[in-house]
Amino acid sequence: MTAVETAIERLSLTNSHLNQTSLPATNLKKNPSVLSITALQDPYKVCVIGSGNWGTTIAKVVAENTNNYPQLFQSKVDMWVFQEQIDGRNLTDIINTQHENVKYLPNIKLPENLVANPSLLDAVNDADILVFNIPHQFLPRIVQQLKGNIKKTARAISCLKGFEVGKNGVQLLSDYITDQLDIQCGALSGANLAPEVALEHWSETTVAYNLPFDYRGEGKDVDHKVLKALFHRPYFHVSVIDDVAGVSIAGALKNVVALGCGFVEGLGWGNNASAAIQRVGLGEIIKFGQMFFPESKVETYYKESAGVADLITTCSGGRNVRVAKMMAETGESAEYCEKNLLNGQSAQGIITCKEVYEWLSTCDKLDEYPLFTAVYRIVYEGLPMKNLPDMIEELEYFNFV
Amino acid sequence: MTAVETAIERLSLTNSHLNQTSLPATNLKKNPSVLSITALQDPYKVCVIGSGNWGTTIAKVVAENTNNYPQLFQSKVDMWVFQEQIDGRNLTDIINTQHENVKYLPNIKLPENLVANPSLLDAVNDADILVFNIPHQFLPRIVQQLKGNIKKTARAISCLKGFEVGKNGVQLLSDYITDQLDIQCGALSGANLAPEVALEHWSETTVAYNLPFDYRGEGKDVDHKVLKALFHRPYFHVSVIDDVAGVSIAGALKNVVALGCGFVEGLGWGNNASAAIQRVGLGEIIKFGQMFFPESKVETYYKESAGVADLITTCSGGRNVRVAKMMAETGESAEYCEKNLLNGQSAQGIITCKEVYEWLSTCDKLDEYPLFTAVYRIVYEGLPMKNLPDMIEELEYFNFV
Repeated sequence: MTAVETAIERLSLTNSHLNQTSLPATNLKKNPSVLSITALQDPYKVCVIGSGNWGTTIAKVVAENTNNYPQLFQSKVDMWVFQEQIDGRNLTDIINTQHENVKYLPNIKLPENLVANPSLLDAVNDADILVFNIPHQFLPRIVQQLKGNIKKTARAISCLKGFEVGKNGVQLLSDYITDQLDIQCGALSGANLAPEVALEHWSETTVAYNLPFDYRGEGKDVDHKVLKALFHRPYFHVSVIDDVAGVSIAGALKNVVALGCGFVEGLGWGNNASAAIQRVGLGEIIKFGQMFFPESKVETYYKESAGVADLITTCSGGRNVRVAKMMAETGESAEYCEKNLLNGQSAQGIITCKEVYEWLSTCDKLDEYPLFTAVYRIVYEGLPMKNLPDMIEELEYFNFV
Repeated sequence: MTAVETAIERLSLTNSHLNQTSLPATNLKKNPSVLSITALQDPYKVCVIGSGNWGTTIAKVVAENTNNYPQLFQSKVDMWVFQEQIDGRNLTDIINTQHENVKYLPNIKLPENLVANPSLLDAVNDADILVFNIPHQFLPRIVQQLKGNIKKTARAISCLKGFEVGKNGVQLLSDYITDQLDIQCGALSGANLAPEVALEHWSETTVAYNLPFDYRGEGKDVDHKVLKALFHRPYFHVSVIDDVAGVSIAGALKNVVALGCGFVEGLGWGNNASAAIQRVGLGEIIKFGQMFFPESKVETYYKESAGVADLITTCSGGRNVRVAKMMAETGESAEYCEKNLLNGQSAQGIITCKEVYEWLSTCDKLDEYPLFTAVYRIVYEGLPMKNLPDMIEELEYFNFV
């Protein structure tokens, strides 16, 4: 057996219960819910823009579903791949013959209907649904190339984490895509460490999408049911909601909270302290949402996978925690720790905490976000992180009368 | 240096920033809040009932504060100790001479004003504030002995986790204490793994207390400010709220959720799955509170340390996670794993999930709590835990029209 075959064998054993089509005898539910959905005359063509670790994983999920539901989707999914040479071969050729992204998602078998395409414009040509899954910093350039080259009726989902913070305010990346390309765009985010999703270990996610003003009606346009069918897998449970802002804000700010968790972990303060940071962080995320995106719902933050669950997963490990922990243990700068640990990649929280700090400073709201402020000052101004408890809660003094 | 001296030395080094009385120069807050509080003519006498790991830790916290605030409290705190012999000496004598609970909290220096008392009735005699911190199963017997032997004007705080579930419903332990002893009783709960609090590593907690109908007025009775002064330490940040039910429910049900996390951890499903279980668990905790204690507040569950933070800490480790993980890894029963891992102690979630299941079954509400139900059925009916995802979310089927 090849390594890939071994991986498939192992996966199918581990997850056999998830792939069965009939209801398991032990299922507690007597009545699984049935979604009625209108079959399409012209099934949607789907394109995934991006092919990194998370991009390829989402493309796998999507291609499994387009193959499952010919009533809704054309089976073939184009995945735009930034062309690279691997041992003298095009990465796209390897993906299209071996059905494996050997560079960014090795040892995971990809569906044969997922086709790697090195041409961005060819990949998006005729696509009805665009799934964006590229590093944040590439978005402006990609969007520039797409202008005028996509279907006017296309809809989009952004899997990018975060938002743009500028002097004029906070802009959701989905809104940026809508503004630039004039197509409706939602967001997908959740407690989704990519390698675990790729291995088909059970997880949950949240898709947020608002029907646009020019919604063409059921059976003629993308809606919540179509998105459920596109992303839901037995191992990847999808909840579809309206709150694009809430999903995006939680996805961006969790990385700042994760830095705080890394600090207390590196100081050796243990689980109580890390849980306290997450509690305070959740509160500041909710407040940020309420203050700057009043249309976002408090419930999204504590009920959805994109909210509290993603916060918990992110704070239990990952780049931001590792960088902050090393800062605490060595006393070195964020820059030094990033370089040493991440091999040229960045910890998103380092960038986001600066953007958030500058924005809150512009609004004169720093006092209301003591954790976000403290994380910024530790990272950029060298404040001692052992003062975190005092920085995030006012000390109370008793005045006896 | 003795071991204790070494421990003190280490603690004072580690936590020197927490023990300073002046405001640190790096504190972000320009105006620390000042609580005005009425000094008492007859300062309150405080008694801690219980001296296990958590009991002794809370007694340490309390005694540090009674010593700090002579305007409110008598310095001496009685801690009732179930008498035991250690190397031929009374445990109480060891505590009162070495100022260390060598059996249940070794290597932690206790304040000299904390006095171990082997007589329950002598310890509570004249006490104005009773802090209960004993194993749940001893409560009825202790309460029986206290009847008629405590001050009629006394107030109480329960640090016990959980509630009583019987055929007639769910009763908070604080309400049980109030019913049996005719004294107002609140609750203390939070993300408080005892060893970390004992080491003075920073953590947070929640104290919940309702002013009783016979509240005697400020300066004459226990209120939120008095409780803040009694429990708040620089390393133990206290939030005082009204919602006794919310604090108690979250404290009990988190252990059931932790079993679910142990299952998915033992199955090797990773962080996404554990975060998903916590998200679903938080939702069921909130629903349980809303359904059976409508006076409890949703906010308590996602904003307070006793809510989401305690859930996170508990699901990141501890007895329930360990027992469930071993069940997943070995296929052995809960009973077998408890015996092997816990040395005669019990994982509270095993008991609580049964109580909750029976109560929900009586109410015909099992369908609304799929995670709690699934955990019970895995533990008591041997359902395969790999079916958890299907058990906690309905599979959705598309019907194309």
